[in-house]
Amino acid sequence: MSQPEQRTYLDLVKTCDNYPHIDISQLPYSHDDQTALYQLLLPDDSRPHGFMLPSIVQKMPWTSNFTITHDPSGPRSVRVLDSSNGADTASAINAALKEVIQAASDSKVFGNLIRSNPEDYKVLGADYDGKPVQLLRAAAGLFGICCRGAHMTVYTRTPAGEIKIWVPRRSRQLKTWPGKLDTTVAGGIRAEESPFECILHEADEEASLPEELVRKHAKSVGAVTYVAESAVGSGGELGLVVPDVLYLYDLEVGPDIAPKPQDDEVEEFYLMTVAEVKEALLRDEFKTNCASAMIDFFVRHGILTDDNEPDFLEIVTRLHRSLPVPTRPL
Amino acid sequence: MSQPEQRTYLDLVKTCDNYPHIDISQLPYSHDDQTALYQLLLPDDSRPHGFMLPSIVQKMPWTSNFTITHDPSGPRSVRVLDSSNGADTASAINAALKEVIQAASDSKVFGNLIRSNPEDYKVLGADYDGKPVQLLRAAAGLFGICCRGAHMTVYTRTPAGEIKIWVPRRSRQLKTWPGKLDTTVAGGIRAEESPFECILHEADEEASLPEELVRKHAKSVGAVTYVAESAVGSGGELGLVVPDVLYLYDLEVGPDIAPKPQDDEVEEFYLMTVAEVKEALLRDEFKTNCASAMIDFFVRHGILTDDNEPDFLEIVTRLHRSLPVPTRPL
Repeated sequence: MSQPEQRTYLDLVKTCDNYPHIDISQLPYSHDDQTALYQLLLPDDSRPHGFMLPSIVQKMPWTSNFTITHDPSGPRSVRVLDSSNGADTASAINAALKEVIQAASDSKVFGNLIRSNPEDYKVLGADYDGKPVQLLRAAAGLFGICCRGAHMTVYTRTPAGEIKIWVPRRSRQLKTWPGKLDTTVAGGIRAEESPFECILHEADEEASLPEELVRKHAKSVGAVTYVAESAVGSGGELGLVVPDVLYLYDLEVGPDIAPKPQDDEVEEFYLMTVAEVKEALLRDEFKTNCASAMIDFFVRHGILTDDNEPDFLEIVTRLHRSLPVPTRPL
Repeated sequence: MSQPEQRTYLDLVKTCDNYPHIDISQLPYSHDDQTALYQLLLPDDSRPHGFMLPSIVQKMPWTSNFTITHDPSGPRSVRVLDSSNGADTASAINAALKEVIQAASDSKVFGNLIRSNPEDYKVLGADYDGKPVQLLRAAAGLFGICCRGAHMTVYTRTPAGEIKIWVPRRSRQLKTWPGKLDTTVAGGIRAEESPFECILHEADEEASLPEELVRKHAKSVGAVTYVAESAVGSGGELGLVVPDVLYLYDLEVGPDIAPKPQDDEVEEFYLMTVAEVKEALLRDEFKTNCASAMIDFFVRHGILTDDNEPDFLEIVTRLHRSLPVPTRPL
């Protein structure tokens, strides 16, 4: 068996943030029928909330709640109409999205919608009178909206002060990234919850960590942002524009605390030295976006520095890509 | 006296990173004679290391060691030639830069070169056989190269665990940013030193912190990157493209350690609560780039979070702008 080639930290960050570094919001103006993206537009809002591939727009069973503008000379767009007459715009949008996604699922036109997780994702930067716009998590990539995850790294210190990190191995039965190493606690953020609420329930479900401990000691430490192009292995359509944000948390625990698998997502937790985590990263053993979260941990904890990493500055900027969609409501 | 308007954290970050968010490397291709920038090119290297204004290129007393390409239809450029015949390229480049900067200083064509600090800045991402390319710090903006600073935030914790931060007030006698609040320890990185070496000598010179303490406990925690447009107050030419990186360090100290002014740059150190620092930031009392360094500290320490700051994601990405110049040698 041949050894996989040794990678660099920057390689790992680029594998996660792998959508070309172009101005995506200008792409819809491209005059190429095959590639010109459609902007996803919401009522009374000129800002694109997602970017859809022409092949997806063509196959989606649109209803009368949507206006599709195909004109390739201007910005192409999919606009959700407000059928509420101003009564409850968010609910009207959400119902329109649910209907079209259900129809697409029923007609089996997109494989990943079938028997998918019933959770919704929120459309970042979009709400109406405080009510979020949301759609089925498995359809987020089809609409090109920003996905949101929360990742918490749980670590401890040896008596000598060395950091050791709790690293789970994903179950080999999972459809996505089976057997890969993961962030200690991580999950997609449901439409109705905040990043920290996501951490609280995932810490319990995935790692059996008591809510009181997490609530008291977990620390918000920033975010990693990137834009991925969906590829084989993601379980869905290829070539989608997938903006993503991972809200990051650190939790330092004493030697008496050990995460334990509770649901069927984690096979086992390892307590790894920094050297062991480095080797596993560079051997490509981590799930792609968990590698970026761990590299950000390394930067924040003085493990990767300008003195020991020639790509330090490019890593730091690349982990925080400007997102092509709005991040706060109008 | 009218109160200054209350600002937001994002306002502060944007004031620091205030060069338009366009692809600067494409600017030289603009067909506008007045604004088309010149790329600064080095021998055997096609990557632009800086961007110069036409007005600066016109006034600089170029020597035969430079080739200036004015053709506005292609990329305009200032290329430094290698007069060493391959013997010691870095020294030849540095001598050529020194000669032209000295001539500009002698002829008083650029005000800020007169009686300037004699330190050199290194050209980030440029060395020849391990020897850095460098030029006079006061001329860095004229050539549009990336400036490099190192900032260390020194903080302590109260018995209840609350963070308190050591904040210096700059001397009212300084030419730049007199009387403004600053990062505990901060300075421009000399050509011959690493970011951490800069912190070590600045911690001694500016804050009387012992080298042993800093060497043992200071932690590299990332970097803030931005591109500024030089403005009134910077003490030099206006409208320059100034890419900048601040390498960031944290130093947690006990209650027995207190920084003390040693050179004439600091008037006084205050031990401020987080609430006091917040107020001072939003009242615009901090030097512009020190505000960004402090906001990054707030993000890393869970003080600014997605739960309490609507601009959280835009702040996080905006503090880490992709730099328009190479960050590592060929």
